Amino acid sequence: MTMTHYFDLNTDRIQNDILTLAGMINEEAEGYTRRPFTKWYAQSRAWLAEEMRKCGLAVQIDASSNLIGRLEGINKSLPPLMIGSHTDTVTGGGRFDGIIGVLAGIEIVRQLSEKNMALDHTLLIVDFTAEEPSEFGISTIGSRGMVNNLSTEMLSRKDPDGLVLSEGIKLAGGRPKDIPVEALQKGDLSLYLELHIEQGPVLEQTNTDLGIVTGIVGIQRYRIEVVGQANHAGTTPMNMRFDALTAASTLLLAIESIANQQYEELVVGTVGRLFNEPNGSNVIPGRVIFDVELRSLSTNAVDQMVNQIKEEITIVESNRSVNIVMDKLSQSDPIIVDQEVVNGIEKSCSKIGKTTHLPSGAGHDANQIARISPIGMIFVPSKDGKSHCPEEFTEYEQVAKGVQALGNALLHFDQVLVNPTTCPQH
Amino acid sequence: MTMTHYFDLNTDRIQNDILTLAGMINEEAEGYTRRPFTKWYAQSRAWLAEEMRKCGLAVQIDASSNLIGRLEGINKSLPPLMIGSHTDTVTGGGRFDGIIGVLAGIEIVRQLSEKNMALDHTLLIVDFTAEEPSEFGISTIGSRGMVNNLSTEMLSRKDPDGLVLSEGIKLAGGRPKDIPVEALQKGDLSLYLELHIEQGPVLEQTNTDLGIVTGIVGIQRYRIEVVGQANHAGTTPMNMRFDALTAASTLLLAIESIANQQYEELVVGTVGRLFNEPNGSNVIPGRVIFDVELRSLSTNAVDQMVNQIKEEITIVESNRSVNIVMDKLSQSDPIIVDQEVVNGIEKSCSKIGKTTHLPSGAGHDANQIARISPIGMIFVPSKDGKSHCPEEFTEYEQVAKGVQALGNALLHFDQVLVNPTTCPQH
Repeated sequence: MTMTHYFDLNTDRIQNDILTLAGMINEEAEGYTRRPFTKWYAQSRAWLAEEMRKCGLAVQIDASSNLIGRLEGINKSLPPLMIGSHTDTVTGGGRFDGIIGVLAGIEIVRQLSEKNMALDHTLLIVDFTAEEPSEFGISTIGSRGMVNNLSTEMLSRKDPDGLVLSEGIKLAGGRPKDIPVEALQKGDLSLYLELHIEQGPVLEQTNTDLGIVTGIVGIQRYRIEVVGQANHAGTTPMNMRFDALTAASTLLLAIESIANQQYEELVVGTVGRLFNEPNGSNVIPGRVIFDVELRSLSTNAVDQMVNQIKEEITIVESNRSVNIVMDKLSQSDPIIVDQEVVNGIEKSCSKIGKTTHLPSGAGHDANQIARISPIGMIFVPSKDGKSHCPEEFTEYEQVAKGVQALGNALLHFDQVLVNPTTCPQH
Repeated sequence: MTMTHYFDLNTDRIQNDILTLAGMINEEAEGYTRRPFTKWYAQSRAWLAEEMRKCGLAVQIDASSNLIGRLEGINKSLPPLMIGSHTDTVTGGGRFDGIIGVLAGIEIVRQLSEKNMALDHTLLIVDFTAEEPSEFGISTIGSRGMVNNLSTEMLSRKDPDGLVLSEGIKLAGGRPKDIPVEALQKGDLSLYLELHIEQGPVLEQTNTDLGIVTGIVGIQRYRIEVVGQANHAGTTPMNMRFDALTAASTLLLAIESIANQQYEELVVGTVGRLFNEPNGSNVIPGRVIFDVELRSLSTNAVDQMVNQIKEEITIVESNRSVNIVMDKLSQSDPIIVDQEVVNGIEKSCSKIGKTTHLPSGAGHDANQIARISPIGMIFVPSKDGKSHCPEEFTEYEQVAKGVQALGNALLHFDQVLVNPTTCPQH
């Protein structure tokens, strides 16, 4: 097998691709909006499939409606390598999130073809369906389906327009009934790689080109309900109040302080969502409900935060004579990238630019694929750390460097992962 | 003029009247709902007018659509005494707020009639139109109109159903065009008296029957906007955040603390209304808007609170690198009840039960009438301090004591206010 360790820095071509997809959006929605199961999504998928075919990929739609381009490898006995991401956006989103990962896969295959390079492993380039949070209450729909983590209950959910998820998947070319049969099992892939924008400020603020992802944080979400007593803001003396909003404020500041402490791994703690009732300017708040989200590569660190929050709740209940209930909404466990994968990606990236290692604070399709395969991820910088908004931006040259890095990593692992004993343990 | 200083404690009759009005509500709305300009309001008005006529009142609807019952006095040269309140409710309101004040007026005239008592002053019993906050963005509509404080702009406002306020007033029998001509001027009334539920916990918690109102607090409302930076809750490290909600929480606790300090008069400070943006559980809040309401009988005390809040804003802006803007939404000046009126009411109430002096933390129709006349108010206890909710309750015997007290006060001032030199200064 002939190969070079350097893919071309094809900035113009990746820029053109990004701008082409950026034109296939719902112009009536804000920002760059291409929601799954819409005509704009179908239009972009048709274009992607055509680009895949042009560079020699065999195109198929799997049971979950993921768009997959397949490049047969020399050694048919090796489980495929897979590169993927998504091209759906949030409403009012940007042009880069997910999109660059799919386009990178196609660009790599183009260059493999142009350079007459062949891989030992079969390569799958995947555009996963509906990665972003959806009106069905779940995200990463396509990658969930690929690993059979899409329950019958989930498939039967309706969005506000009455569309049943399984019908949406059918509209996008999938076969919901075949999802369990077709699903990938452990051992079916050699490695999954994903290039993504950081969606955070760390790379930009440290002047770093490429982030090697050490893991994807686990997320625990809690709902806290503070029940005080709604009363007239004019007639209730200060010392006879049970104000749910000031009680909640005390907790919010405590949670911020708890998340600012040092743990064995980095942590973040956020209250992003809060509802105040009855929310009248002349009524003392009687009930406040807010969601707490805690993330870390260390479940232990998150558990420590939770315990401290519970202690604080007891204090606030006692000091303010309010009732506070904390319920767990969800928990996803952290994913730790195998050290061999981190090392291989580092080796491939360090030839291209300045690197740093960091956890992914956001979830990705990689979370789902990690259920059955080792995974690796590369980040490129996000301007001002912004994502999920029209201002989301990465310099096109930095995207192109990401493509080079991903290509190098692909070649590295194509060489390394040739027998089961060298495969990273999942 | 023959008179007794004691009105009968006619608990059954006042209870029947309250329950009769409590049946004239929109059964499809929550609680006890009788909004102005509805068929339920028209029904209750018809009943009230009939009760007024039965006890000898001459009934009229004024230009602002207030329902007025008139009892001619012996001395036509004296400006009338007026008793009033309102019978509209908030949506999901109760059976007592406002209502007992109008029914007390009717009950007093019934007893005057039964006892063959005549007053020197002409007496007006008023059911003011639409005292509660309305969909037109203003409250005390009828009493505003009576003193020509209802602007053309206000009269042209539409509610969400498209009803123009002036049309509503016409539907209720008013003549919006005549409002300025008919308006009462300074000197047109000898005194305005209002019986009302406390809508707060003070009387109940101090085992007091009757509250003598020393004034009605001034209210200043401010809108505070905290602008931070919305960012991904997973990918933005704690030390790179500009969280508008935790910044707002700091301010909320500071405002609470400022309102808990001692000033020359009692104060209250409340943040009842807060909006968090974008309010997603995985997004660091970028903007929080909340309303601060400060009340006191002392404008100076409120000004001191405002200055301290502004100082705290500067500190939070500096510590958290957020931008905070504080805008004044409205200011109403406090109304101080003339000492002679307080003394006369105290004298009249202390024969009936245990009294205390307290400011009214809520606004009333009395606020408007105070523009042209001395005013006095008597409070009866609110169970658990609750108001504007179905649980709003006052023991019927306590309402009846309130009627007795109001009647005594009426007789007292009817005797006292017989020449201009003894009139309380406005």
